[in-house]
Amino acid sequence: MKQSKLFTKTQKFAPKDEVSKNAQLLIRAGFVHKEMAGVYSFLPLGLRVIEKIKNIIREELNAIGAVEMEMTALQKSETWEKTGRWDDKIVDDWFKTNLKNGTELGLAFTHEEPLTNIMKSYISSHKDLPKYAYQFQTKFRNELRAKSGVLRGREFLMKDLYNFSLNKKQHEEFYEKMKEVYMRIFTRIGIGDRTFLTMSSGGSFSKYSFEFQTVTDAGEDIIVLDKEKRVSINKSDFSEELLKDFGIDKDKMNFKEVKAAEVGDIYTLGEKYSKALGLTYKDENGEEKNVYMGSYGIGVPRIMGVVTEIFNDEKGIIWPESVAPFRVHLISLNKNEEAEKIYNDLTGKGVEVFYDDRNARPGEKFADSDLIGIPYRVVVSEKSLEKGGVEVKKRDREESKIVKVEELLKNFA
Amino acid sequence: MKQSKLFTKTQKFAPKDEVSKNAQLLIRAGFVHKEMAGVYSFLPLGLRVIEKIKNIIREELNAIGAVEMEMTALQKSETWEKTGRWDDKIVDDWFKTNLKNGTELGLAFTHEEPLTNIMKSYISSHKDLPKYAYQFQTKFRNELRAKSGVLRGREFLMKDLYNFSLNKKQHEEFYEKMKEVYMRIFTRIGIGDRTFLTMSSGGSFSKYSFEFQTVTDAGEDIIVLDKEKRVSINKSDFSEELLKDFGIDKDKMNFKEVKAAEVGDIYTLGEKYSKALGLTYKDENGEEKNVYMGSYGIGVPRIMGVVTEIFNDEKGIIWPESVAPFRVHLISLNKNEEAEKIYNDLTGKGVEVFYDDRNARPGEKFADSDLIGIPYRVVVSEKSLEKGGVEVKKRDREESKIVKVEELLKNFA
Repeated sequence: MKQSKLFTKTQKFAPKDEVSKNAQLLIRAGFVHKEMAGVYSFLPLGLRVIEKIKNIIREELNAIGAVEMEMTALQKSETWEKTGRWDDKIVDDWFKTNLKNGTELGLAFTHEEPLTNIMKSYISSHKDLPKYAYQFQTKFRNELRAKSGVLRGREFLMKDLYNFSLNKKQHEEFYEKMKEVYMRIFTRIGIGDRTFLTMSSGGSFSKYSFEFQTVTDAGEDIIVLDKEKRVSINKSDFSEELLKDFGIDKDKMNFKEVKAAEVGDIYTLGEKYSKALGLTYKDENGEEKNVYMGSYGIGVPRIMGVVTEIFNDEKGIIWPESVAPFRVHLISLNKNEEAEKIYNDLTGKGVEVFYDDRNARPGEKFADSDLIGIPYRVVVSEKSLEKGGVEVKKRDREESKIVKVEELLKNFA
Repeated sequence: MKQSKLFTKTQKFAPKDEVSKNAQLLIRAGFVHKEMAGVYSFLPLGLRVIEKIKNIIREELNAIGAVEMEMTALQKSETWEKTGRWDDKIVDDWFKTNLKNGTELGLAFTHEEPLTNIMKSYISSHKDLPKYAYQFQTKFRNELRAKSGVLRGREFLMKDLYNFSLNKKQHEEFYEKMKEVYMRIFTRIGIGDRTFLTMSSGGSFSKYSFEFQTVTDAGEDIIVLDKEKRVSINKSDFSEELLKDFGIDKDKMNFKEVKAAEVGDIYTLGEKYSKALGLTYKDENGEEKNVYMGSYGIGVPRIMGVVTEIFNDEKGIIWPESVAPFRVHLISLNKNEEAEKIYNDLTGKGVEVFYDDRNARPGEKFADSDLIGIPYRVVVSEKSLEKGGVEVKKRDREESKIVKVEELLKNFA
């Protein structure tokens, strides 16, 4: 993409009411626009990062036979009354609205109920199970406070996957598989080494549960962590009993308390929703049984925010290659003819290039490039051409080197 | 995708309250699920069609230098009060909701105001113009009635593009270009020959306006059409004055009234929003001027609905290749070993294949395939293998032929 076509510009300052580092950086670099607390528009560069994260998740979920769909935000009360979750006293972060005829509707904060309801049309026999469905869908949550930038949104894109299984055993096999899938996703995104499968308190169907926590000062949680042994426990659920139940000998652990942000959760739902909504199947003996379920969430902008919090320096963001909006930031210093050719050659080879073709001062171009944080900076200038090529610098390194144009094309292709 | 992984099944009947043909077919074939009138979830097959339509639109818009972004559903009153459109008496299809602290929010039915507001951060000089931004975003419209299936949604995905130009002249150049872009989009989707640029009444800034109308009995509009000469006028705006203004001699026209569905609209907004919200730029003489705008919408599920209404027979849907959920429906009749190899070979070559690996009767498989409507049906059976290959049939043709497997792979690659 040519930078001259982009309508955003970098900004010196973020809005005064924006206290989180992730949103400050993302706003200043032109990735997001703050509509109100917890509600962010995704500008072109930001949307590209969101799509990168979605694609990594999508590839990993498709690979295990999960199928993508998309449910609605608007929800009718009937479905939710069956599980008791329509009541604002039970679920305190609903946004509610009304049809013209007065009928009250809700804006989905999650999708267990509507999906369980949909599945009633399609699941009736043990032969129909297991099935795995997921979506990327906007969730609405009426948070009292929203001060963590894109980490906690009142409106945000979530990947939520649901499994529908025959029984506890079949569910647990999938649940274990999802632990690995999630670690693969976080590793590909570039936060694997600081993300830990973390024990926490269970829901209705299990004494304990698991979540994925990424170590960052911006996190709202505290985990008790042995980094070496990769043993992590949510501090609020840390107890002698838990240690005993998991066979953990505290004396052999090097536990430290660190701040962390939850980046994924995996829940055993059991028969709670299938029973309430009547999602059953006939087993091999013709006996009617409740479908056994689980749910698995990842907040996509939250991942973007966590990555921003972790990978930055005083100059700006430093995107990991896998989720960067572009791979190469090509900067022309009054050499647009030569740069344009390189831009066409690179994009022709499928390389994602952000090309600064603007008529601006070198210092401004470099400062913008550092703030935006694309992994490779390639400068075409009088000086670089005299030295026989272009100047290549990685965002996270100080040193640069001159590379011949043919070599550049070969290296990136 | 293997059909055994898909959780949907075809159904004999659609819900009784569903009167529109498009929704009846799409529900029965497992493309959408009706949550309530005008609110549909997109099931895996349906989401694939939506993504195909989005990609065609995206490619055509990126090609003219438009840049993709994504705004929010939740809207604060301040932005909309400036144009008077917050008032429910002015805009009667708002969904409104409330924050915990009582602040009233709206769910966007369009995005002129928030985007104009965003642009204030980035546009200040004539050098910043023109710019083109678009998004695919869920719109919420509190329609009194919603009986046209996916043609008219209370919650639906819309592509909306906005141009920000120096003046009327620069705007009009882009407006003319968009007419061509829209026709290219509709042609690629397969409805070009029955889609007409249609004259209709203007908005605040022009006496007349244009919309794209596709001839279909499911349409809610009536157009006065000379098909041969491709002259089309919205009946509600047909007048002697309009004919005179456009230099149309009625006697030389072969006008007929036909039902049509609006598939795209292109509006000149002029300075209405920039003036109200203070989006100005300094021209070359340092003079402050209002930015000149236009907006261009396409309802994505509406396109899916129109295609369904047009391309079907008594057996089901007949998708045009460009928007079909898959290109090939591979059906194994107890020959899963042979079929699986073909499936792997075809998908390995990048062909999108829906593979019916289910243990079901041939009649059921064929009926499902006809209802779902994938362009090419490829059957692997004892009989076809005896004859030396697989049986290939186009969805819209009666005849089939036996094709050698190597030939099949070559033809589709």
